[in-house]
Amino acid sequence: MKTKPLILISNDDGITSKGIRTLVELMSELGEVVVVAPDKPQSGMGHAITVNESLRLYKTDVFEDLGVEAYECSGTPADCVKLAKHHVLKDRKPDLVVSGINHGSNISVNVLYSGTMSAAIEAAIEGLPAIGFSLCDYAHNADFSHIRGYVKRIASEALRNGIPKYVALNVNFPAIMQGEIKGIKICRQARARWQENFDERKDPHGRLYYWLVGDFINEDPGQDTDVWALDNGYISIVPCRFDMTCYESFPAISQWEL
Amino acid sequence: MKTKPLILISNDDGITSKGIRTLVELMSELGEVVVVAPDKPQSGMGHAITVNESLRLYKTDVFEDLGVEAYECSGTPADCVKLAKHHVLKDRKPDLVVSGINHGSNISVNVLYSGTMSAAIEAAIEGLPAIGFSLCDYAHNADFSHIRGYVKRIASEALRNGIPKYVALNVNFPAIMQGEIKGIKICRQARARWQENFDERKDPHGRLYYWLVGDFINEDPGQDTDVWALDNGYISIVPCRFDMTCYESFPAISQWEL
Repeated sequence: MKTKPLILISNDDGITSKGIRTLVELMSELGEVVVVAPDKPQSGMGHAITVNESLRLYKTDVFEDLGVEAYECSGTPADCVKLAKHHVLKDRKPDLVVSGINHGSNISVNVLYSGTMSAAIEAAIEGLPAIGFSLCDYAHNADFSHIRGYVKRIASEALRNGIPKYVALNVNFPAIMQGEIKGIKICRQARARWQENFDERKDPHGRLYYWLVGDFINEDPGQDTDVWALDNGYISIVPCRFDMTCYESFPAISQWEL
Repeated sequence: MKTKPLILISNDDGITSKGIRTLVELMSELGEVVVVAPDKPQSGMGHAITVNESLRLYKTDVFEDLGVEAYECSGTPADCVKLAKHHVLKDRKPDLVVSGINHGSNISVNVLYSGTMSAAIEAAIEGLPAIGFSLCDYAHNADFSHIRGYVKRIASEALRNGIPKYVALNVNFPAIMQGEIKGIKICRQARARWQENFDERKDPHGRLYYWLVGDFINEDPGQDTDVWALDNGYISIVPCRFDMTCYESFPAISQWEL
């Protein structure tokens, strides 16, 4: 008899967020779940790891009602996956690592800033099949009900087919009603950037401080991108690698007089 | 008469590190330099950005002896580049953005964890030519003297030829004597990972905590990688892109029943 698949879950919004609870509920229907997630929000942490400080890791009963083993960690999402793989699970190898469901979009270049995706990419570096799920709704109490079926189906297919090695899927859901979702597109990452502004304020002591605010600028006219898919009512899946080498640049740089 | 090129400098070891001072000295010989760098070490910060807290930015006289305008920032390396581009430099567009010189290696997958490279990649996202420099020596008082000529030459060639758009160069120097450096190789990022261990300790109150320690495992036998180049006495240059799409995975994922 085949044992149940082992599914590791992490996120970047913290272990008490609504998104990770939704994911734990859904993955519990597919296998045995272990959660190692940050004890506080870690949005925008990118692929940060904790090297100059020590880490705390505590067992928690936050998912006891679902019968799920869970640990909260003082570190980043990437730290959580490292701790899970090398300390919590030890010789048990997860069949799937899922991260999220993020409260907010992780499309285009945001994959680089995303703690959600850093957990998935960390797992991919370890050679584990991994998926990051994000809903394009930043609200604390975002409604995940309309995407539950999709999340479960994508994870099921990942368990059934496997994911190409060293690849993590970046899955984003539009914040629209169930009936309005047109389907799923496998996409490339759109070329986009943030047009930043810094909101300059004075503290009560008269010293300046700044808040990062910005507009997301899509510079990519392609209809095969994640931005296009979400703008047009589709769920986007971008398979992500962690080899950042730009092979196309080799000829140009080779001409330099070095 | 051509005006001097404008060169923006950041790093992740903090504005008072020896590596950034070396870089400021060298770049001052090539153009007008503006520094926006973290006010404290930010190693391992990956592409983190500060979204849930405000930022401080202060003008500092740390490079007054070199006649260089400098700002220290409470945020991450990526924050520094965003603040520099959109707030400090405003309408002035840098001809080159350089980051480092990092005290320690940023080869292979470490590009993802690297604050040094996140500054360079942030600049690349903005469409600016960018280079991250790292010396494979973690010492606080590392000796940069033998690589000064190389750093200056690589930056000069970048200014002269330009860097392909949306590409940041990841340059790593071996920690060996000048006469032993065999040359410069344009490389791909080696496939490698960290075999992590967590050093478990008890605090004075009897509670457990962990330090992340690990061994770097190169799983890539290729002789065209950055790891091979450095192990064999060469300087490595990896041109890095920020499109993480794994196009090769499209056919496999397209077969899924979604």
